[in-house]
Amino acid sequence: MTKPLILVSNDDGITSLGIRNLVEVMKELGEVLVVAPNRPQSGMGHAITVGDTLRLTESTIFEGVRAFECSGTPADCVKIARHYVLKDKRQPDVVVSGVNHGSNTSISVLYSGTMSAAIEAAIEGTPSIGFSLADYGSEADFSHTLDYIKKITQQVLRKELPKGVALNVNFPKKRKDALKGIRICRQANAKWVEDFDERKDPNGRKYFWMTGKFVNFDKGEDNDEWAIANNYVSVVPCQFDLTAHQAIPVLNEAWEILG
Amino acid sequence: MTKPLILVSNDDGITSLGIRNLVEVMKELGEVLVVAPNRPQSGMGHAITVGDTLRLTESTIFEGVRAFECSGTPADCVKIARHYVLKDKRQPDVVVSGVNHGSNTSISVLYSGTMSAAIEAAIEGTPSIGFSLADYGSEADFSHTLDYIKKITQQVLRKELPKGVALNVNFPKKRKDALKGIRICRQANAKWVEDFDERKDPNGRKYFWMTGKFVNFDKGEDNDEWAIANNYVSVVPCQFDLTAHQAIPVLNEAWEILG
Repeated sequence: MTKPLILVSNDDGITSLGIRNLVEVMKELGEVLVVAPNRPQSGMGHAITVGDTLRLTESTIFEGVRAFECSGTPADCVKIARHYVLKDKRQPDVVVSGVNHGSNTSISVLYSGTMSAAIEAAIEGTPSIGFSLADYGSEADFSHTLDYIKKITQQVLRKELPKGVALNVNFPKKRKDALKGIRICRQANAKWVEDFDERKDPNGRKYFWMTGKFVNFDKGEDNDEWAIANNYVSVVPCQFDLTAHQAIPVLNEAWEILG
Repeated sequence: MTKPLILVSNDDGITSLGIRNLVEVMKELGEVLVVAPNRPQSGMGHAITVGDTLRLTESTIFEGVRAFECSGTPADCVKIARHYVLKDKRQPDVVVSGVNHGSNTSISVLYSGTMSAAIEAAIEGTPSIGFSLADYGSEADFSHTLDYIKKITQQVLRKELPKGVALNVNFPKKRKDALKGIRICRQANAKWVEDFDERKDPNGRKYFWMTGKFVNFDKGEDNDEWAIANNYVSVVPCQFDLTAHQAIPVLNEAWEILG
């Protein structure tokens, strides 16, 4: 039996602890190819590089694993892996992204570079998973996530996923108690409320740091925020069709300006 | 009656022809505030500025209109408008973004900075519209779009929009025939197939330009690609809940690893 081909990317950059953990797990499951950003790309959303050039350099950072660092965004990494590194060759059986340093639950999925790599793969028709840990520390403890990452990836390799679906998997920060299991969830109804910390540079010119407070409006127990708050692994199936289908008949009915 | 407050942004930058056209139309409808990027930000998706500083400078580029240029992304512009420029003041009645030089139909909505400004506003609960013209030229002809932009914005101000919905409005390139009207659509099932144009820099090091071919798989007549190909204005209601709700029972049924 041929070993599955697994493409690994992330948004914290190729040297981060999270991707090193992810690569170690994936080596147990198949043949691994890494194409990841050459520097942190957090908050890049689904950005791609238009109107600028890209660099791609082979890297020996992972022992026994073919790896490239790319000057682009996470979405660029998936595109260049598919259409340049693997051009006309066998394509990945699964694309995994992360493990992100910091959670990507709820609305953060939109801003997440980790998930944009996974969603880019879903657009290409490849099953994909973004993994994130609710711990921003650069020396975060990933030990409780590894067995789950393996199980979830094996499950996806066994059963695939519905077409066009990418999984957004979030882990709670490590606690004394063991994780309680996996919950299939919906994206929680929550948002960030920003604040702008105004400062002066050495020349007396104003600049800002954007800071944010996460506000959760969701009272349900079937969403990703609830799951990780209660020490479960949350799995949200995500799609790239942004159409608010339920709004189409509403607008067709309400708008006077339609012909 | 108080005039509506209209926040204008875009992703081509504050000096582009598209935003000048948009501001002119909005001046007829209400009080206008512009917060737009200080340089082109195409393809930025829903990127935000994390781990870096932001600049915001007042601009006199639009006669009689309060305007700021921001060093951040389109989503940053909407955030800083709301939480700094308008902090504790009256918030916009509508947020409009564009007019983008180039279409944002189908899957391009994910990569679009224009639409990320609109979606950011929808997250904040403000009705919002991204306008794009299927003409990449920096001297594109916007004349056929202006009356429709006015009508659509008035319609949204009159009837609002379902909660959490942002409109993705696309115009065909100007033709001899007049536009046929407005169609409420879904996002077409299509994607970009990339190619990487490999070159050598003056030092002999490899670099790439990403190029892409748009491939449309959609045979329907209810989608945005069909609409603009047939000289209609397409209006897609978009949402920021990425959950593939229909996949939740499928995974709950199929996965053996759930507790």
